[in-house]
Amino acid sequence: MEALRRAGKAWLEKATHPLIAWFDARRVTPNQLSVTGLIVTLASTPLIATGWLTTGAILFGLGSLTDALDGALARHHAQASKFGAFLDSTFDRIGEGAALVALAVYFANADRNAAVAATAVAMLSGNLTSYVRARAESLGVNCEVGWVSRTERVTIMGLGMLLHVPEYMIYLLAALTSFTVGQRVWHVHRRLAE
Amino acid sequence: MEALRRAGKAWLEKATHPLIAWFDARRVTPNQLSVTGLIVTLASTPLIATGWLTTGAILFGLGSLTDALDGALARHHAQASKFGAFLDSTFDRIGEGAALVALAVYFANADRNAAVAATAVAMLSGNLTSYVRARAESLGVNCEVGWVSRTERVTIMGLGMLLHVPEYMIYLLAALTSFTVGQRVWHVHRRLAE
Repeated sequence: MEALRRAGKAWLEKATHPLIAWFDARRVTPNQLSVTGLIVTLASTPLIATGWLTTGAILFGLGSLTDALDGALARHHAQASKFGAFLDSTFDRIGEGAALVALAVYFANADRNAAVAATAVAMLSGNLTSYVRARAESLGVNCEVGWVSRTERVTIMGLGMLLHVPEYMIYLLAALTSFTVGQRVWHVHRRLAE
Repeated sequence: MEALRRAGKAWLEKATHPLIAWFDARRVTPNQLSVTGLIVTLASTPLIATGWLTTGAILFGLGSLTDALDGALARHHAQASKFGAFLDSTFDRIGEGAALVALAVYFANADRNAAVAATAVAMLSGNLTSYVRARAESLGVNCEVGWVSRTERVTIMGLGMLLHVPEYMIYLLAALTSFTVGQRVWHVHRRLAE
């Protein structure tokens, strides 16, 4: 899992490098990319909520990718700021959460109440994954562990909608994400016990 | 708001002091209280989901209160540990989130889809409120600001269910909590700009 993730990240960094350089040449700032990414992601939510899953998934994927580029742009230009990093990670949470709100509405409209519950669990666990890490870091414990971090969650969501299997996707997402929370809590426990 | 909150906290601390001393005499540890609080809170969720709002609200209130006492017990006994603080705040998130998952199911069963959306927004914003604070603290910025922190959110939820006005409650909660996220992001922006 870890090796796969690192390979994926390296590939993405290489594949998007020309784009990063293009943005950099046009003096686009990382924060502008963050804001644009969030706006595109938010634009996907009414589509998802009303069942336009394909177009919704494409917009959601584009928005998430834009938001993933801002960190790379910041590093490229040595513009990495504390507020930029804070804004970036907060916007990540808002974008992912908004897509899940939209999915909850979609499932509620389709009278899939078990899927509504799974969506809420996936949202809670996704937020907990990030919360546990931030809280651990505020206690001085590094916490980049566990099966599914934000990139995997967003990929699962995007693919599930694109392939029109939102229900399977949401059960898988809820299970994997909850498991990851357990992994992180356990990790913090062990580190702090040392 | 701030003065009201401080007065409430002081009152609660005084009112629960005999209970804290009782627990302490029986060698109850703060972590045991955290776990008990979470179990009681989780026990409320099937009740809430199936519309037993009064009993659900009472159990939810009891669980949240138990979870609020663990910090006081830790201070009383000078048992405050890093992992205890971490566990406590993570359990707070899980308990509050689980009650909102239950409310989402309740609204979905009642075909109140707008309320389902508001529940998801309240959950997202509630998690963001905590996330923004933890993330800010990991950057060295104190972030105990904003109108509604966990105590207020839990009080609003408990009262709304107890008074059988879950829909009004969830719209109020979603609005107030989202506003608080904005307040915190703005606060971090100003602090980091200094």
